[in-house]
Amino acid sequence: MSLEKFFNPASVAIVGASQTPGKVGYEILVNMIKAGYPGKLYPINPNAKEIEGIACYPDIASIGQTPELAVIVVPAKAVPAVMQQCAKAGVKSVVVITAGFKEVGPEGKELEQQIVQIAKQAGIRVIGPNCLGVISPIEKLNASFGGDLPQSGVIGYISQSGALLAAILDAANAMGIGFSKLASIGNKADVDELDLLKAFGSDPSVKVIAGYLESITDGNDFLREAEQVSLKKPILLMKSGGTEAGAKAASSHTGSLAGSETAYECMFDRAGIIRCSSIKVQFDFARTFVSQPLPAGRRVAIITNAGGPGIMAADAIEREELEFAKLTPKTIKMLQEKLPAAANFYNPVDILGDALADRYEFAIETVLDDPGVDAALILLTPQAMTEATKTAETVVKILRKKTQKPVLICFLGGGKVAEAVELFRKEHLPYYDSPEIAVQTLRVMADYVRWRSRPKRVVKMFAVNRRKAENIIERNLRMGTTDLSEADSKEVLEAYGFVTPKGSIATTSEQAAGIAEQIGFPVVMKIWSPDLTHKSDLGGVVLGLENKREVMDAFDLMMYRIPKKAPKAKILGVLVQEMCRRGKEVVIGMNRDPHFGPLIMFGMGGTMVEVLKDVTFYLAPLTADEAKQMLMNTKTYKVLKGFRGEEGVDIDAIAESLQRLSQLVTEFPQIQELDINPYIVSAAGTAPVAVDARMRVKKV
Amino acid sequence: MSLEKFFNPASVAIVGASQTPGKVGYEILVNMIKAGYPGKLYPINPNAKEIEGIACYPDIASIGQTPELAVIVVPAKAVPAVMQQCAKAGVKSVVVITAGFKEVGPEGKELEQQIVQIAKQAGIRVIGPNCLGVISPIEKLNASFGGDLPQSGVIGYISQSGALLAAILDAANAMGIGFSKLASIGNKADVDELDLLKAFGSDPSVKVIAGYLESITDGNDFLREAEQVSLKKPILLMKSGGTEAGAKAASSHTGSLAGSETAYECMFDRAGIIRCSSIKVQFDFARTFVSQPLPAGRRVAIITNAGGPGIMAADAIEREELEFAKLTPKTIKMLQEKLPAAANFYNPVDILGDALADRYEFAIETVLDDPGVDAALILLTPQAMTEATKTAETVVKILRKKTQKPVLICFLGGGKVAEAVELFRKEHLPYYDSPEIAVQTLRVMADYVRWRSRPKRVVKMFAVNRRKAENIIERNLRMGTTDLSEADSKEVLEAYGFVTPKGSIATTSEQAAGIAEQIGFPVVMKIWSPDLTHKSDLGGVVLGLENKREVMDAFDLMMYRIPKKAPKAKILGVLVQEMCRRGKEVVIGMNRDPHFGPLIMFGMGGTMVEVLKDVTFYLAPLTADEAKQMLMNTKTYKVLKGFRGEEGVDIDAIAESLQRLSQLVTEFPQIQELDINPYIVSAAGTAPVAVDARMRVKKV
Repeated sequence: MSLEKFFNPASVAIVGASQTPGKVGYEILVNMIKAGYPGKLYPINPNAKEIEGIACYPDIASIGQTPELAVIVVPAKAVPAVMQQCAKAGVKSVVVITAGFKEVGPEGKELEQQIVQIAKQAGIRVIGPNCLGVISPIEKLNASFGGDLPQSGVIGYISQSGALLAAILDAANAMGIGFSKLASIGNKADVDELDLLKAFGSDPSVKVIAGYLESITDGNDFLREAEQVSLKKPILLMKSGGTEAGAKAASSHTGSLAGSETAYECMFDRAGIIRCSSIKVQFDFARTFVSQPLPAGRRVAIITNAGGPGIMAADAIEREELEFAKLTPKTIKMLQEKLPAAANFYNPVDILGDALADRYEFAIETVLDDPGVDAALILLTPQAMTEATKTAETVVKILRKKTQKPVLICFLGGGKVAEAVELFRKEHLPYYDSPEIAVQTLRVMADYVRWRSRPKRVVKMFAVNRRKAENIIERNLRMGTTDLSEADSKEVLEAYGFVTPKGSIATTSEQAAGIAEQIGFPVVMKIWSPDLTHKSDLGGVVLGLENKREVMDAFDLMMYRIPKKAPKAKILGVLVQEMCRRGKEVVIGMNRDPHFGPLIMFGMGGTMVEVLKDVTFYLAPLTADEAKQMLMNTKTYKVLKGFRGEEGVDIDAIAESLQRLSQLVTEFPQIQELDINPYIVSAAGTAPVAVDARMRVKKV
Repeated sequence: MSLEKFFNPASVAIVGASQTPGKVGYEILVNMIKAGYPGKLYPINPNAKEIEGIACYPDIASIGQTPELAVIVVPAKAVPAVMQQCAKAGVKSVVVITAGFKEVGPEGKELEQQIVQIAKQAGIRVIGPNCLGVISPIEKLNASFGGDLPQSGVIGYISQSGALLAAILDAANAMGIGFSKLASIGNKADVDELDLLKAFGSDPSVKVIAGYLESITDGNDFLREAEQVSLKKPILLMKSGGTEAGAKAASSHTGSLAGSETAYECMFDRAGIIRCSSIKVQFDFARTFVSQPLPAGRRVAIITNAGGPGIMAADAIEREELEFAKLTPKTIKMLQEKLPAAANFYNPVDILGDALADRYEFAIETVLDDPGVDAALILLTPQAMTEATKTAETVVKILRKKTQKPVLICFLGGGKVAEAVELFRKEHLPYYDSPEIAVQTLRVMADYVRWRSRPKRVVKMFAVNRRKAENIIERNLRMGTTDLSEADSKEVLEAYGFVTPKGSIATTSEQAAGIAEQIGFPVVMKIWSPDLTHKSDLGGVVLGLENKREVMDAFDLMMYRIPKKAPKAKILGVLVQEMCRRGKEVVIGMNRDPHFGPLIMFGMGGTMVEVLKDVTFYLAPLTADEAKQMLMNTKTYKVLKGFRGEEGVDIDAIAESLQRLSQLVTEFPQIQELDINPYIVSAAGTAPVAVDARMRVKKV
């Protein structure tokens, strides 16, 4: 059901409107009046005739009309009764401002469930409870106690924190940022970030979506929606809550490497969401998205009246992986003809300390016309002759005329550029207080452009033996086993097209020697126990055994030593296995995030994986491009491609493995964690080998 | 000679004082007058009787007195003559504002040299030319054209860019930052950053030193001085110029890994200098150093009236590697007694959205009294009931009383907290516009405290065969060889106590087999040529040869193949060498920076070194602590210590090697670059082995 009436209702009832200044029920009514709300206002208060000159009603029924929006500020215990009134009267949109619900304990939770129940039965959508309210500057609606109506603009804002929204609104006002619609979602009893994302996504009055979130309720749905919305509108989110002091105990490499924030980061990456670290950064980013076109590429030109800030901006361009625009000979010639001889005609274009507004005008226009320039950064320091304000007026004029490329402005200083900055603020142009943050903004824009132009996502499906994998997993689950044995893990992988080394379990040293001879030397031996996970820590893995005697010795030593170190472990024997000597060790794996589902991991393998942490994660299901990109995001990639004369390995084979893994864990939600380590990859045409594999499953 | 008279002269002559507003010679005079300069002012202008009511003199001689400071603003060509006048009159401190010297080409350079010459002969100290001037708010001296006199304070500022200084002064004023002394050093013809560092270092009116530098003239002297000064006063520097598009071609691992900024970063680390990425960040850091005590440790407590910003600050604390203070039971009990039940009594202490100033007061005082808290961060969002200004007054009161621990303030929002922020600005208290930057500030403070408490630097000297190393290096230099052969490189290293593998050069396959038998199998073979650097790229390195036949085959294959791939290389034979199988590969090396001298490198070894870049650099000479710290700064350290059941290696032996290397390159400035890769390190008690070594030397 549409959320439109929350922001554009023809009539609003304020249930719990108060006559007492300072009370929330009074503040909201006054905020509605001060905002100049053009619709009908019905204060509901059985003990008052009128408040601030507006007639009161004792209850919703007595209005005689159905208000399109009800804002409830009565005490928590009275809220269910008011909800019933709303249901009876046919109100379809309700904002519950009142706190004292889920956030205060079981009793509040019970009350909140009552609200949800009534709403569901009556087809009412509810924002809140425990929220600041809803605001729509473009509709002159301020059903909140967040202060004066913010400036009108094109940002749709979603805040999970009412308290922070107060600061956000106040900061936005000071920074000249305007909004189309804002909602404080509080406890998210009904309407949540996903609903608002959908609403703002299809709302033509919203050009940029921003928000502050502490959690995302339906991870996967949110991801899918955000992915679509991002194609049309940038989404700028603050997300807090990264530190989980007692992170869950890791039972796999992949699990221990995937921090609590990894899933969110993957989701943001995949959906093209731009993460912001503070309110200021969010609005610094937003103001350029709002006012400027997207850059066609990453080539940035700088125009400055001082060398120092030009160098600082250049440093930032390199750090942010943007490109330094190379001006065409034509541009350089034009600059040389008109600028003083001491100027720098190359990027950064230094028009010197005595540059007046006209010189800025000429240089900016000339540089913007250069086809090799995708974006420009205008720097100014207030020197003796500098015309800060006049230059600002010139910049405003140019930006009205030239609207093809983003131009960011950084006038350094304080009082001397205050008038100029105020002009930019009024004109909603993107001004910054340091070259650094301006360049960071350009970087997120360029990254967003790259994200938008990524190829269509097509997930390839491989022919696999799904039935076989299912049988193994189900058999384990029936037996109550959650950590699959290495053999079972590998069988599941084989069913999905993975190659594993030859080998069998031996229970005596003679048998071990026999298996080894059959496989051919050298062999590897691994202790075989469902209870031991990190076998090599206990001396349970021996490599490169060259003959029968070495095999028999190794067997007996393991049988003697390991029970001493791990007396409780059930030891089933020793796996004697073909040794894969050629190739490089990588690790691939999966960790299932409770919100976003399977996170596929790729990284450097061996025991170093947890030390060097050269790994990347991506959300399943993976496309071929994404699998390849995962590889390219690691440093290991260079090594895999072949480095310093060493032969490279079959990159495509690894990318395919990641896709197969992605298919496996997508088809089996039972699989919670999965590690293939080491995964030995070799020259083109040679199948990679899953030397060791671990898998944890649970009933779903 | 002291620079005192630049900032505190009893009399100032302005040579080139002008009657025309807008001209630099006028502006400086007016700035001096407006600043209320209490000393004698002598405008020098042969064509004017008086300017702004002050009597003019035709030249310095005609003053009849010796001005303690002369500020020169006459055209560049006339400056040498004025310098002569100054010399004659006995002026000892001169600021040359005029531009048009070294920065404009050879003619200007010649003029600048004339100035330097005159100054040297007459014992004059010169600041500039091409600078903005000098300022001392505490002495009411404004001999600059940088605008109004800045606020008085305790910061000493050094700027290499006049244009940026204009912005810096303007921004400082807006941010409520005050200065003791400022100098724009321009072309640094005489006085440079080192002189001012010394002057500010011993100046009791300077408590914090800050600056903007693009280059450092005497790297090593600056480092040594900064190291001493940092013990007493924090040094906060912006340093730009990190991007050198065409970085020098790398001829060694160490060289290619040491970017142009590595040396600066090492220097900053070693000297305890705090690097700042922008003007705003610099003053954000400075304002806390100026107004607050240093924290005793890294434990931060947060007091907030909203959950969201508290979480954001907590995230930042984790990111910045600070510690989350754990409040004592006593503190928690006190908080529980007085705060509402819904508050959070643990860190972050959430005193709820309806907190008034008194609740803040109680919470801040209680938390600050907790012995487990080293620093506090006060957060406020302007909610309906919030008393922003009154709370600010309370904070000011508390900070006047409690001065033992740093307290940082972050009132989020805009207009609603503007009055509060203005109060903090006036009181010079550290306020921030995001929790993030406040926490960053605490981090640099805590790091600075850690730096200051580091043990005294003692560089150990090892007994070495210096004469032998000298002979080899000198022999090579006499022959015009700059890239030492592997054999010579290793001999030099042996003279300094390094162990190298056994081996000799073979020129026939039979000879190779003979050497191999003598050493014992397996052996390694390497092509021997002064012209081939990355031998493995060409197949010039073969490992693990097990018998005579393999050795002979390898020899012949190299002789057949390598001349085809590198037809111009002179091939002297093949090195047959003992194979070091046990242990881990690391790389140690040195790259000599033109400004700061030898940078010692340590990192993960093998061909992966340039891919994974798990390396650290430190400036020689190294202490034992620093050598150990270098190891600990890499991820490889975990592996070296022993990981997942693998035995660790002899960490102290590596640390000693780094110190020996440091001694070698300190004693031989001829050595420009040095790589030991791989350096095989093994279990405790086993000497590491320098398997391959390369060294580049030059005459010095």
